[in-house]
Amino acid sequence: MNAQVKYQLSENDIPADWYNLQADLPQPLPPVLHPGTGRPIGPDDLAPLFPMELIAQEVSTERAIEIPAPVRDIYRLWRPTPLYRARRLEKLLDTPARIYYKYEGVSPTGSHKPNTAVAQAFYNAQAGVKRIATETGAGQWGSSLAFAATLFDIEVQVFMVRVSFDQKPYRKAMMETYGAHCIASPSDQTQAGRAALKQNPNSSGSLGIAISEAVEQAAQRDDTKYALGSVLNHVLMHQSVIGVEALRQFEMADDYPDIVVGCTGGGSNFAGIAFPFIGKQLRDGALRGDGKTLRTVAVEPAACPSLTRGQYAYDFGDTAKLTPLVKMHTLGSAFVPSGFHAGGLRYHGMAPLVSHAVQLGLVEPVAYTQPECFEAAVQFARAESIVPAPEASHAVKGAVVEALKCKQEGAAKCILFNLCGHGHFDMQAYTDHFAGRLPPERYDEGEAAMALAGLPTVGT
Amino acid sequence: MNAQVKYQLSENDIPADWYNLQADLPQPLPPVLHPGTGRPIGPDDLAPLFPMELIAQEVSTERAIEIPAPVRDIYRLWRPTPLYRARRLEKLLDTPARIYYKYEGVSPTGSHKPNTAVAQAFYNAQAGVKRIATETGAGQWGSSLAFAATLFDIEVQVFMVRVSFDQKPYRKAMMETYGAHCIASPSDQTQAGRAALKQNPNSSGSLGIAISEAVEQAAQRDDTKYALGSVLNHVLMHQSVIGVEALRQFEMADDYPDIVVGCTGGGSNFAGIAFPFIGKQLRDGALRGDGKTLRTVAVEPAACPSLTRGQYAYDFGDTAKLTPLVKMHTLGSAFVPSGFHAGGLRYHGMAPLVSHAVQLGLVEPVAYTQPECFEAAVQFARAESIVPAPEASHAVKGAVVEALKCKQEGAAKCILFNLCGHGHFDMQAYTDHFAGRLPPERYDEGEAAMALAGLPTVGT
Repeated sequence: MNAQVKYQLSENDIPADWYNLQADLPQPLPPVLHPGTGRPIGPDDLAPLFPMELIAQEVSTERAIEIPAPVRDIYRLWRPTPLYRARRLEKLLDTPARIYYKYEGVSPTGSHKPNTAVAQAFYNAQAGVKRIATETGAGQWGSSLAFAATLFDIEVQVFMVRVSFDQKPYRKAMMETYGAHCIASPSDQTQAGRAALKQNPNSSGSLGIAISEAVEQAAQRDDTKYALGSVLNHVLMHQSVIGVEALRQFEMADDYPDIVVGCTGGGSNFAGIAFPFIGKQLRDGALRGDGKTLRTVAVEPAACPSLTRGQYAYDFGDTAKLTPLVKMHTLGSAFVPSGFHAGGLRYHGMAPLVSHAVQLGLVEPVAYTQPECFEAAVQFARAESIVPAPEASHAVKGAVVEALKCKQEGAAKCILFNLCGHGHFDMQAYTDHFAGRLPPERYDEGEAAMALAGLPTVGT
Repeated sequence: MNAQVKYQLSENDIPADWYNLQADLPQPLPPVLHPGTGRPIGPDDLAPLFPMELIAQEVSTERAIEIPAPVRDIYRLWRPTPLYRARRLEKLLDTPARIYYKYEGVSPTGSHKPNTAVAQAFYNAQAGVKRIATETGAGQWGSSLAFAATLFDIEVQVFMVRVSFDQKPYRKAMMETYGAHCIASPSDQTQAGRAALKQNPNSSGSLGIAISEAVEQAAQRDDTKYALGSVLNHVLMHQSVIGVEALRQFEMADDYPDIVVGCTGGGSNFAGIAFPFIGKQLRDGALRGDGKTLRTVAVEPAACPSLTRGQYAYDFGDTAKLTPLVKMHTLGSAFVPSGFHAGGLRYHGMAPLVSHAVQLGLVEPVAYTQPECFEAAVQFARAESIVPAPEASHAVKGAVVEALKCKQEGAAKCILFNLCGHGHFDMQAYTDHFAGRLPPERYDEGEAAMALAGLPTVGT
């Protein structure tokens, strides 16, 4: 058996700043547009939804934004997270590649989501906010915001996508343990929810619908703001602590990745690990330049392939078309993906920053099916002892594919992937996998074509 | 909000040795007896069940037993575990007490069980063992042995107590993910199981029955050894890494506990945290001697109160009376506790070393009901962000009670408790708690009296 290798930073190594990729982009991000006027929106348009500090972060092009002391203080509960060398997996795959993984499952809720939940709760508390509405897919985000908000005495209302609400009752229980309220979406609590139920009383829900419900409530209630667990620039920036730590851990390891892999639903955990590396290479001028080029691979589910089969266009972030328009890879805001287990990846769109990076050739997207991801996850669990969340299994699969390519090519490359969460809440998915009973994950091209036909015409 | 305080040791601080309380006991542990002859058993009697190295550890009175390098190497996956100061909980309770907790939930399976699972898998592998049979209550032990054994290419057969098998399907899925086989106990695979089913086809099972099944299989099959997740001396010793680390962490904190609290089912997590502190005080000659006396509190469930309401006597470790006789606090090996949620605490007996320490006045036992434990756990989760396992909630309750006593007395004492696992697999218990639907936890005195009437007569 190979020796376990863990690169553990000390508390003092928790990054002082978040990293903002917008500072290093060769071309700026396309603006966010008002759906009515087709003109770029301003801070005031977002003020009903977010505290001003987060709106400022959303449009900032500063490279480093200081992490407030109270946020770093809470980060210390579980950060810095470990970086592991997957020696036993390497041996199992018989690959010359060196495989590393950053493990975000050590947080109280078991995923990377608290990195931004704590920050968002802090800025909301600072602005005097007492109630936040949000959506959640698999429940990772909802439980993370619940955990963070309770530390700042903020009440939380979570709209949880119906299929995950039914598949993962433990996540709801966790949110309630932290004192939050959680209901299934579509719900009868909002116009958007009622409309979705009218169209399909048995709707399995989608992140798009759940976002509509939460945004609607925040827009209509003076006492309520909105929080999003992915997609937005400031959320991706908060997740940069992952990659900034990893950069330092690679110094400890005296190594450097050739390939960085993450899974993409809304894009935040991928951005969290990849952007600090992309930014460094952009600043060093080496990206796609010499032998030491960096490849970053965004792995999405074959059943919700916004990056690989969607359209790069302006679209709504939600189903009821309540949000501003953002330019991203989209399957159409009306697209409802099938109810596969990786609920955190069931989003019709993509973080605009990730889409932009794909357009600039900085990120390679790829899609895999559930069974191949679970197969890789089981292989990983037996070798490396951690059971990946279904979402994270996509990153595992991406890393395994790259490691096997290295084996074919005899190339001793260095692969880093983000193990963004453990699967302790998702074990039904493994049971279904072993029993050959994974839920259908058909990507309906016809449905996507119809949804894409309904794209807004502004901004094109 | 108070600042988060975490005492994190470096990898180099993983203890080099396990600590063995038997070296420091003022009176030796009563011997283990053969049920037929009533005479002390020898190593050969245990050889069908355990590799010789573990048998030697079972009877060793060496103070320090070296942790083999491959075991320490795997420990590095998650050890050293953090020690936290529960500042927010202190504030919430408005207590002058300083509350610390050692958190064992950072292991791959979410509890302290891997501390001994890895060691046992190692010694079995070293002895050439290819298959192990074991029992599990809540599933913490079964999944931990499954995780450890797969690293050493050992096959695992788990007999899981029926009530937990039904309550916690995710634990079974986890064992299977690690490649182990898991069936509900009582099963039709063993004589002991069939006998239990004949007596009660709807038996909710018990650790006593499940132990019988695993021991029977190990005794009858040449290719199979047995492993136990608690109770035995060597298991408690492996868990001493918890307390040995905590001792060093209190040096970092420049503090020292007045009270050490742990929950007790079989006794291993309690012993793991408490014994190194008890041993130190015994060696220092200060226990119960001066102002700096140490109190240790063992918290058990009111529905399975072996320490507080059982008899200190020789009894079988299992229901089918296949094990040798050990002197311990017992409710009678025929006693089947009600199916409450803290499945890891549903054991009729107690670790002989813990019972002996209670008899010597070194440990104070106390019992609490489920609702009061869950109430404390919810309070803890909202303050400290970690959701305790139902078993661990007993330790939380014990610490809260002591902290509130300090408040009443105006005493600024230092309390340490062992948060032996997270509750991510047990969220149904929280749902039941919130809904006022916790399963019955009646302690049936009549049933216990009948079970106690059946105690063996040898060794009395």
